[in-house]
Amino acid sequence: MVNNYSGKDINIMTDKKQNVWDMACDRLDSVMDTLNLTPGLKKYIKEPRKSVEVAVTVKKDSGDIDIYKGWRVQHNMNRGPAKGGIRYHPDANLDEIKALALLMTLKCAVVGIPFGGAKGGVQVDPKKLSERELENLTRRYIFEIINIIGPERDIPAPDVGTNAQVMAWIMDTYSIDKGYAVPGVVTGKPIALGGSLGREEATGRGVVYSILSALKVHGIDSTNLSVSVQGFGNVGSNAAKILYGLGFSIVSISDVEGAIHKPSGLDPYKVLDHVIKTGTVAGYREADNLSREEIFALPCDIFIPAAL
Amino acid sequence: MVNNYSGKDINIMTDKKQNVWDMACDRLDSVMDTLNLTPGLKKYIKEPRKSVEVAVTVKKDSGDIDIYKGWRVQHNMNRGPAKGGIRYHPDANLDEIKALALLMTLKCAVVGIPFGGAKGGVQVDPKKLSERELENLTRRYIFEIINIIGPERDIPAPDVGTNAQVMAWIMDTYSIDKGYAVPGVVTGKPIALGGSLGREEATGRGVVYSILSALKVHGIDSTNLSVSVQGFGNVGSNAAKILYGLGFSIVSISDVEGAIHKPSGLDPYKVLDHVIKTGTVAGYREADNLSREEIFALPCDIFIPAAL
Amino acid sequence: MVNNYSGKDINIMTDKKQNVWDMACDRLDSVMDTLNLTPGLKKYIKEPRKSVEVAVTVKKDSGDIDIYKGWRVQHNMNRGPAKGGIRYHPDANLDEIKALALLMTLKCAVVGIPFGGAKGGVQVDPKKLSERELENLTRRYIFEIINIIGPERDIPAPDVGTNAQVMAWIMDTYSIDKGYAVPGVVTGKPIALGGSLGREEATGRGVVYSILSALKVHGIDSTNLSVSVQGFGNVGSNAAKILYGLGFSIVSISDVEGAIHKPSGLDPYKVLDHVIKTGTVAGYREADNLSREEIFALPCDIFIPAAL
Amino acid sequence: MVNNYSGKDINIMTDKKQNVWDMACDRLDSVMDTLNLTPGLKKYIKEPRKSVEVAVTVKKDSGDIDIYKGWRVQHNMNRGPAKGGIRYHPDANLDEIKALALLMTLKCAVVGIPFGGAKGGVQVDPKKLSERELENLTRRYIFEIINIIGPERDIPAPDVGTNAQVMAWIMDTYSIDKGYAVPGVVTGKPIALGGSLGREEATGRGVVYSILSALKVHGIDSTNLSVSVQGFGNVGSNAAKILYGLGFSIVSISDVEGAIHKPSGLDPYKVLDHVIKTGTVAGYREADNLSREEIFALPCDIFIPAAL
Amino acid sequence: MVNNYSGKDINIMTDKKQNVWDMACDRLDSVMDTLNLTPGLKKYIKEPRKSVEVAVTVKKDSGDIDIYKGWRVQHNMNRGPAKGGIRYHPDANLDEIKALALLMTLKCAVVGIPFGGAKGGVQVDPKKLSERELENLTRRYIFEIINIIGPERDIPAPDVGTNAQVMAWIMDTYSIDKGYAVPGVVTGKPIALGGSLGREEATGRGVVYSILSALKVHGIDSTNLSVSVQGFGNVGSNAAKILYGLGFSIVSISDVEGAIHKPSGLDPYKVLDHVIKTGTVAGYREADNLSREEIFALPCDIFIPAAL
Amino acid sequence: MVNNYSGKDINIMTDKKQNVWDMACDRLDSVMDTLNLTPGLKKYIKEPRKSVEVAVTVKKDSGDIDIYKGWRVQHNMNRGPAKGGIRYHPDANLDEIKALALLMTLKCAVVGIPFGGAKGGVQVDPKKLSERELENLTRRYIFEIINIIGPERDIPAPDVGTNAQVMAWIMDTYSIDKGYAVPGVVTGKPIALGGSLGREEATGRGVVYSILSALKVHGIDSTNLSVSVQGFGNVGSNAAKILYGLGFSIVSISDVEGAIHKPSGLDPYKVLDHVIKTGTVAGYREADNLSREEIFALPCDIFIPAAL
Repeated sequence: MVNNYSGKDINIMTDKKQNVWDMACDRLDSVMDTLNLTPGLKKYIKEPRKSVEVAVTVKKDSGDIDIYKGWRVQHNMNRGPAKGGIRYHPDANLDEIKALALLMTLKCAVVGIPFGGAKGGVQVDPKKLSERELENLTRRYIFEIINIIGPERDIPAPDVGTNAQVMAWIMDTYSIDKGYAVPGVVTGKPIALGGSLGREEATGRGVVYSILSALKVHGIDSTNLSVSVQGFGNVGSNAAKILYGLGFSIVSISDVEGAIHKPSGLDPYKVLDHVIKTGTVAGYREADNLSREEIFALPCDIFIPAAL
Repeated sequence: MVNNYSGKDINIMTDKKQNVWDMACDRLDSVMDTLNLTPGLKKYIKEPRKSVEVAVTVKKDSGDIDIYKGWRVQHNMNRGPAKGGIRYHPDANLDEIKALALLMTLKCAVVGIPFGGAKGGVQVDPKKLSERELENLTRRYIFEIINIIGPERDIPAPDVGTNAQVMAWIMDTYSIDKGYAVPGVVTGKPIALGGSLGREEATGRGVVYSILSALKVHGIDSTNLSVSVQGFGNVGSNAAKILYGLGFSIVSISDVEGAIHKPSGLDPYKVLDHVIKTGTVAGYREADNLSREEIFALPCDIFIPAAL
Repeated sequence: MVNNYSGKDINIMTDKKQNVWDMACDRLDSVMDTLNLTPGLKKYIKEPRKSVEVAVTVKKDSGDIDIYKGWRVQHNMNRGPAKGGIRYHPDANLDEIKALALLMTLKCAVVGIPFGGAKGGVQVDPKKLSERELENLTRRYIFEIINIIGPERDIPAPDVGTNAQVMAWIMDTYSIDKGYAVPGVVTGKPIALGGSLGREEATGRGVVYSILSALKVHGIDSTNLSVSVQGFGNVGSNAAKILYGLGFSIVSISDVEGAIHKPSGLDPYKVLDHVIKTGTVAGYREADNLSREEIFALPCDIFIPAAL
Repeated sequence: MVNNYSGKDINIMTDKKQNVWDMACDRLDSVMDTLNLTPGLKKYIKEPRKSVEVAVTVKKDSGDIDIYKGWRVQHNMNRGPAKGGIRYHPDANLDEIKALALLMTLKCAVVGIPFGGAKGGVQVDPKKLSERELENLTRRYIFEIINIIGPERDIPAPDVGTNAQVMAWIMDTYSIDKGYAVPGVVTGKPIALGGSLGREEATGRGVVYSILSALKVHGIDSTNLSVSVQGFGNVGSNAAKILYGLGFSIVSISDVEGAIHKPSGLDPYKVLDHVIKTGTVAGYREADNLSREEIFALPCDIFIPAAL
Repeated sequence: MVNNYSGKDINIMTDKKQNVWDMACDRLDSVMDTLNLTPGLKKYIKEPRKSVEVAVTVKKDSGDIDIYKGWRVQHNMNRGPAKGGIRYHPDANLDEIKALALLMTLKCAVVGIPFGGAKGGVQVDPKKLSERELENLTRRYIFEIINIIGPERDIPAPDVGTNAQVMAWIMDTYSIDKGYAVPGVVTGKPIALGGSLGREEATGRGVVYSILSALKVHGIDSTNLSVSVQGFGNVGSNAAKILYGLGFSIVSISDVEGAIHKPSGLDPYKVLDHVIKTGTVAGYREADNLSREEIFALPCDIFIPAAL
Repeated sequence: MVNNYSGKDINIMTDKKQNVWDMACDRLDSVMDTLNLTPGLKKYIKEPRKSVEVAVTVKKDSGDIDIYKGWRVQHNMNRGPAKGGIRYHPDANLDEIKALALLMTLKCAVVGIPFGGAKGGVQVDPKKLSERELENLTRRYIFEIINIIGPERDIPAPDVGTNAQVMAWIMDTYSIDKGYAVPGVVTGKPIALGGSLGREEATGRGVVYSILSALKVHGIDSTNLSVSVQGFGNVGSNAAKILYGLGFSIVSISDVEGAIHKPSGLDPYKVLDHVIKTGTVAGYREADNLSREEIFALPCDIFIPAAL
């Protein structure tokens, strides 16, 4: 099962009361209003170029068939092939995928890399499928969208509910279709299949770069700064390890089960050993144990919100 | 401008209070419940295999660009290439297109022809575009969906707001892409480009076949039966002409402007001459002139509801 | 499981002591010697144009992977697309497939249809795989040879160890790859997917046509002729039923378990009911019961050798 | 005619008593047994993914046609496009090609380059064909396998019986098919067509690198070491020249005709001049002349077995 | 060698003083002027859609290479795939090919078949090439234009200097490129490869149909009419044989060498036997022998100008 | 409108009395004669591999259609994809395009880059078309030649009468056809779409490099050298600016309207400001004003002939 969510995108699904697509458009509109763009150009920038919804047929282990809705939205490909993850989540829906695709276009443009924005997803709870069902789901989903993805068109990546194994299935399905190995069709694949080194800790490292840039902009000396980390998954734990290595003092860490606090500084590597054994930071002996909400009240110089 | 709507599909958009896709699914569900199908199979039959939404960029005569939403839904292609019209209408939306695609699957299966069901549309009022804009819109829309249509895949046809000219542009766009003429990519194209003879009066002729079948089933002698025709567009006028030729007595005809009534029988060819001159049946001298609602109260053996 | 072998090709594997390919070549050589063909032309007629061997990876239900050898041999395609079955048999091997492909070329040419000859197979005992494993095997095998088959290239059909269900998987796999339904890629598919009526009894009917032609050539009156049928599978049972309908008297039938004999004539429909219940003709009450070898000693006008 | 065999692969065909494919498998099995791999994985690693045998029709200068068997085996392409030579040899056969393709997979994996393993061959004696026949043979052979080779799929190279001219014909045939020059489809092509510098002496240079590595590993000082070279073709002569340049003393050289010996050291450039004139090292005046077997008995520090 | 010119197109190259393309345009212009077409439409009808000139490289038997100019002009493909012959002639040139392609468009449109017009040619004297050179020329020429021909695009046919053998080479070249036999790419191929029966005498039969139509239109009784045939190649001899069979009296026949005259009527089958033996009608014993020009002065009811 | 001609190729059309293709061939022949090439090889080097002429249909703003002749000549692609501009000029013709394509082959080969030579053009005066007409013309022209261009085949560039906007339309048309952005299909596109920095001044910079090389070869010190620039378009103005920056003294500049002269040196940036305001160098106050012919008589060390 795919249970190590990569969670590299900010999850903007939390507030169900507001449609995420409308929310993303509101923000974009306010920016475009400031720029005095013409109405046609505003629509051109906002509307996804292509949104595909497919019915993904899966034969369950029970022998029954089930159908899942899948999407791939290509928001904009003017600057190059589109980039964007594929998420497997029971609440995935077209509006959410469109909003995330739009953000991918903007993210790629802002950092100046020659890629456009896309996003995909399947409305499924991956924890409720066996590995065989998940493989069948992935392969069928990819076959349904196979003509619009590719190294020069649109390159998926892992996202919530998908991981390197799912990318390997995608690469294999695409390669079977072409008749030869096409590693360039996905990023985030296993290193043995051509994946990039350093990808796992990349999001956490990005958090660190943001912090260092902010400190530099504000002229703050980084010596002896204290850090609180909310969430200790892929992002939080890697950010903590890198900051620790740079000399920051990690004073508190929380996860779903609780929070730990040690004013003189925690060793995130040791905390991680504890997490691997117990599944949570809670109960870590070399620190005070608190409820997870209490982390917000602890003193620190830098607070990292890395919970899902 | 494209203003001779072919209107060959029943417009199920009239009651805005109920979503047409939900309505179509409700009906299908009640049939599938009766058949005791498994939940997976019911989903398989109901869910469209592929729904594509595209942003159609059009350079207006004013020099500005505008963006229109377009769709192509391929509901089911198991029995052969999908068939289904393309409609241009300001109220077109994804749920409506899905519902109409589902109905196309069922219609093709019921009459036993080796085709699946599809439907397409663009959210645009074709009367508000110049012919050049309409051509540009059509060509760009087709380029966005060109990889999923084709003689062996999915074959569009005219529908509300589109006509033989639009089909000619589609055929030309598709043929340019392939490098040679591909008349099989659309039906409803001009006869000079390979269109079928008899297509214009086909829907009206279908109405007549239905009437004749119903009479036969109920053992009713067709001699001297009187007919009322509500609506005198493509469907109503052709049905009237064919029935007239078969000896039926056309006693009343209505359109948006009014109704005419002649108990001894109208000659639909003469009425049509009047319509061509004046734009309406109202004011036809050789008959009584009534309001359009009054046609429902006139005595007749057969009533044809052929208004949009 | 696929256990209703279609068995439509004469199995020339019985004598393991002689390689079937050499045997087929010997016979062809003797014919070509008679025709005084040049050495180059003889090689051209004999050698298969293309023989492909692939490793078919299957994930077993146990989670392990296993590899099966598969082949597709295209002997000659000069006269049109190649035709030839796909067999699943534990003794399948390249030389056998080559020999059968050569025979397909000759068979198609002899009856004057515009097709060439091919043959395929996988070295596997289909009875030892679950249906899911068999489906996975079929789909992977087809993906490995997908670029050399197709309606204009090479059209598989059922053979020993494969059936209409396997053809349906092949058609689906090929259609997924193309993006639309391609029923022309296989023959012998289920009728609901576009299969031909009358295919199941076609081999048996061919036996009957051969008998009728032989009688005509020799000027034998067909009235009251008695028939012995060795083997009561697809071929034998259908031949018996058709001959019975034409007035022939079916006096004896055998299968693996035994033989039955009734000088006044058996009703093959009733014998088939017995076979469906018991799995064999042996024990049929309305006839004498013998050992299977004894059928060779029974008097008859026509003997049909239809055992595998 | 192609008579400057590149001979870069060790010819493992010498002992006809043992099938080379079985021999290669035996060795691989013993390694895999040590690694305790599962049976399925062992088969997966061993079995070639695809083996294609084609009949290559050639119109001879005499006007007759002749047919040659050709093969291309793609053993494994998981790590990237397959690499592997094409050999023209009268004893070429499927098992040999399979064995060499397996070795290519292992060789590419061992040195860590992103390529898989393949091999091809035609059962023909290239010395018995005119250049025109050889060109026709090459072009037809390539057309028969054109869909499975290519820069992203499988990239042939020269091998026994083929050379840069043959590669040029392959590149031209492939380029004609694509409609534009595709230099990436073969390696070992003429430098004027995009071939790599240094390729001719590459195998000899590899021998030298192996020697230098072995000396380093064993801590042996390379000063004044004496070298015997058995075989003075492409490999032996280039290794000798490079070692000579590095200060090694070449004390003896042999070829099919005989051996030469000079304890104070031979100048391989001068020996090569002699070979170009006479076709053999035998008879070289500035050294002792021996029979070719005697080279094994001469004293030396390093012995290079570079005979075919 | 290709020396049985099919000569089925009227050769409009005879008068070198006037460019054939200009001549064809002049005639078309005068028709279009009569029809009062707009200038744009006139250009659209007149200008070929695509004209391709290629350099055809041929390796001569001498080992030298030579280059020949080849063309394919696709005049109009609106009504369906283009049809048009390929001619090999030392005087072939782009303007001539364009003119003949234009005429093909008009011919196909006039007889109402769903084909457009094209024409091709190579500037070469086929009598000066060996068969091998001619085959190489044909294959290379076809490879250069292979992307614009095909059963749905443009279908060549024999013309001056080409014949069924050349069509077979074209079909083989195209089929090699596609990977399977494509008989629909040319007409005029050998019957054994799928060519049409009756094609050889088709042009002569067309002459006869024209004569019979003319007689019918003018109300002339065909009994006892006398016929003079100028030219006794494919067209003239077949027309003569068919008319002879219909009861016409063939009174005179001429060819390059001379003319024969027999007022009581010649038997064209016997004349043909004489031609096969001697290469000319001249010297035929059962008739008067004249110079070839004298045929114009002989009395006859019908004169058939069938000389090249 | 496209009126900033890039003019980067030497216009060899000036002398209408001699056909440019013949002229280019004459020069090439004299070189090849010197090299003693065989007749076949000379033809091979001279003849363009493929010349395509297409009819480009454009719907004018008036609603009428008009047809323009367009060409693309691929002279030689042996060394890699062809490079060559597309020119829009009322005098464009096939012979000129062929000659320029031949020169492109030679230019690419001389500087040793892996590209072949091509050239394209449309016989149209771009100043007489509206921007919409020019866009339609460009898109249709590209669709007619779309199968022979591409990043691996033939890569157009701006030339006389075309500019970055035309290249953007070409890139968009090609990308629509492929379904994803293909910036590699043209050079000279806008920088925002992936165009190269420094392209605009590249031709002028090349002039400067030539001057500096010549000075170096002749051992001339560049200090205080005076420069006359005939023509002040893209080439002349950029050369002047770069030389000015290197310390050369620009003493005179001319254009179509006149010439200016200032022995102490002109500031080309200031002259350019004047040109932007007035459209000509004539009337520039800080210099003597002369007729354009007088520039030939003014004293200078370096004369740059940069007029069209």
